[in-house]
Amino acid sequence: MTKRFAFSIAATDGRARTGAIRMKRSEIRTPAFMPVGTTATVKAMKPADVRSSGADIILGNTYHLMLRPGAERVAKLGGLHGFMGWERPILTDSGGYQVMSLSDRTKVSEEGVQFASHIDGSRHMLSPERSMEIQTLLGSDIVMAFDELVKTTDTPRAQSEAMERSMRWAKRSREAFDALGNQGALFGIQQGGLDERLRKVSAEALIDIGFDGYAVGGLAVGEGQEAMFGCLDFAPGQFPADKPRYLMGVGKPDDLVGAVERGIDMFDCVLPTRSGRTGQAFTGSGSINIKNARFAEDTGPLDPDCACPVCDTWSRAYLHHLIRSGEILGAMLMTEHNLYFYQALMADMRAAIGEGRFAAFATDFRSRYSAATA
Amino acid sequence: MTKRFAFSIAATDGRARTGAIRMKRSEIRTPAFMPVGTTATVKAMKPADVRSSGADIILGNTYHLMLRPGAERVAKLGGLHGFMGWERPILTDSGGYQVMSLSDRTKVSEEGVQFASHIDGSRHMLSPERSMEIQTLLGSDIVMAFDELVKTTDTPRAQSEAMERSMRWAKRSREAFDALGNQGALFGIQQGGLDERLRKVSAEALIDIGFDGYAVGGLAVGEGQEAMFGCLDFAPGQFPADKPRYLMGVGKPDDLVGAVERGIDMFDCVLPTRSGRTGQAFTGSGSINIKNARFAEDTGPLDPDCACPVCDTWSRAYLHHLIRSGEILGAMLMTEHNLYFYQALMADMRAAIGEGRFAAFATDFRSRYSAATA
Ligand SMILES: [Zn+2]
Ligand SMILES: [Zn+2]
Repeated sequence: MTKRFAFSIAATDGRARTGAIRMKRSEIRTPAFMPVGTTATVKAMKPADVRSSGADIILGNTYHLMLRPGAERVAKLGGLHGFMGWERPILTDSGGYQVMSLSDRTKVSEEGVQFASHIDGSRHMLSPERSMEIQTLLGSDIVMAFDELVKTTDTPRAQSEAMERSMRWAKRSREAFDALGNQGALFGIQQGGLDERLRKVSAEALIDIGFDGYAVGGLAVGEGQEAMFGCLDFAPGQFPADKPRYLMGVGKPDDLVGAVERGIDMFDCVLPTRSGRTGQAFTGSGSINIKNARFAEDTGPLDPDCACPVCDTWSRAYLHHLIRSGEILGAMLMTEHNLYFYQALMADMRAAIGEGRFAAFATDFRSRYSAATA
Repeated sequence: MTKRFAFSIAATDGRARTGAIRMKRSEIRTPAFMPVGTTATVKAMKPADVRSSGADIILGNTYHLMLRPGAERVAKLGGLHGFMGWERPILTDSGGYQVMSLSDRTKVSEEGVQFASHIDGSRHMLSPERSMEIQTLLGSDIVMAFDELVKTTDTPRAQSEAMERSMRWAKRSREAFDALGNQGALFGIQQGGLDERLRKVSAEALIDIGFDGYAVGGLAVGEGQEAMFGCLDFAPGQFPADKPRYLMGVGKPDDLVGAVERGIDMFDCVLPTRSGRTGQAFTGSGSINIKNARFAEDTGPLDPDCACPVCDTWSRAYLHHLIRSGEILGAMLMTEHNLYFYQALMADMRAAIGEGRFAAFATDFRSRYSAATA
């Protein structure tokens, strides 16, 4: 099993950890940020530029890919890696979250979720077994168990029931994954809202089944940073220290710092890519909206402290012009900078943990970052 | 004057010529194709990739740039080259064509054209003097004289009058350009529709004023390839052989071959970029629409004979998926291939002329190109 998937921690600093996951398709340095490549593309980026930004792994969405171009078609074409030209690891989500948030006419049963495609209305079914099959067809390196969407705003009873069902689905996911002979890694997903006791029950159920890594699910769905950090004060510690912990769908730069501080090893989020396309840039002193009129004649780079190719070449004035004009190049360059910014932040955190100065790093980051976010 | 702008012909083959324009900002190999960078960006392309495709020069649009970000602003920011990150030559059009085709409430007088911006309705004026001023502010290497839009479908009398006015405007362009102390090159634009006599009158008027190069204007506006070639059978020869001849707004690959055959040295066209964004790819055997269902599982490259980075990495199936999904990366990759295809065609033509086998090249190109264009 270590050959296929091995997680090693090189250093810890408080609850923060740094290390690496080693897999057949090369290494993932942790804490890791995974750019989102929803439909077999990290939007507006060539794979080589995603790699140059420092990404060791990207995420693909089962829900989108099963609908277009279709998992069987991707398999026929040689798998997701070759199809999109990304030869490093890919983690695929299970489709559980997006089928509930994006599709139409969903019907949830113990078997799984029936739904209509948001693209053409065609009827589909996602279940633990079908999700494992799809992720295997895609050739995913890290497969996520199929879980039920639980909201922190649901009633305690609804949260508890959804968590219990997700645990039954986690077991079916494990069995289906093994029956398929999948040689990748399988992660379980913890549910339980913000409730420490439910989170503990969920963690124990997952540990009992046994996974290569564990995700903290059901957060970053509107509960706010304070509530999320409150949950992260106990949730990561409910898992064995020698397995990677993945916080799904997070987040803003300061979310990442606070979550690493609380023992998280992996992240994914659409924020740097999606917000880049609309003109939001992340900088060491906070995020800025490049469409703002005050940047129209600003000859400085997006972020004076950034070493990315965008900041090296173009001015805020040019990016302002491109985004205002709706130019594709604007989306390309803003996305590229944002991905570099996120990866540089991860690299800085890894270095700080390795050198035992993470608390000072986090304090310094927060004082600079919040200063100009307005 | 030769230091600033020198055109040398290395070889001729029939009426076709190959050579180079040497300018302060490096050399332009001819016949040359100029990708269109309308609003200070060749759409969906980084400047470095435009250069990698083989482009020696790009075109910028005076009309678009004067409205957004504004010529004075571009000048304040250091000029178009630094603004967009393209350090090689840039030719700017005069705005004459686009002000008539894109703006609202235009009013033409002997002075120039009054119009309302298509972006925000603001009122502006373009005249020979203002066009020269704008192109100088932009830092253009090759400035185009301001002319009046003439359609080949206009009455002979209207064509004649518009041509005469364009010649008066050409003279005012020359005087304004010189008065500004512009150190770049200035090209005149021939008008006269499809009428050989009018074209001759126009050519003589321009030669009398004196320009660094001469454009054949008013073609590729719907008259069809046969009529255009008919005009190109006499128009280029009406200019001195030692000056570059530029056919504006052309064209399809077979248009380029036929025009080079008739003595044209320079081209610009939105076709490879615009059609790339909608899924049309140019290949040695004709153009294909990658959205067509027959490409959904086609693992071959866009063009088996193309050496571009796109054809080297991705399949038709992947590009089909991207364009069908409306992904920005689809626009990026299709555009990149098309620009490579156009530049490879120019390089092939230059080599064929240099080796005295242009007729055979053209025959072979046409037999292969038309075969599959369907
Ligand atoms: Zn940057
Ligand atoms: Zn190609």
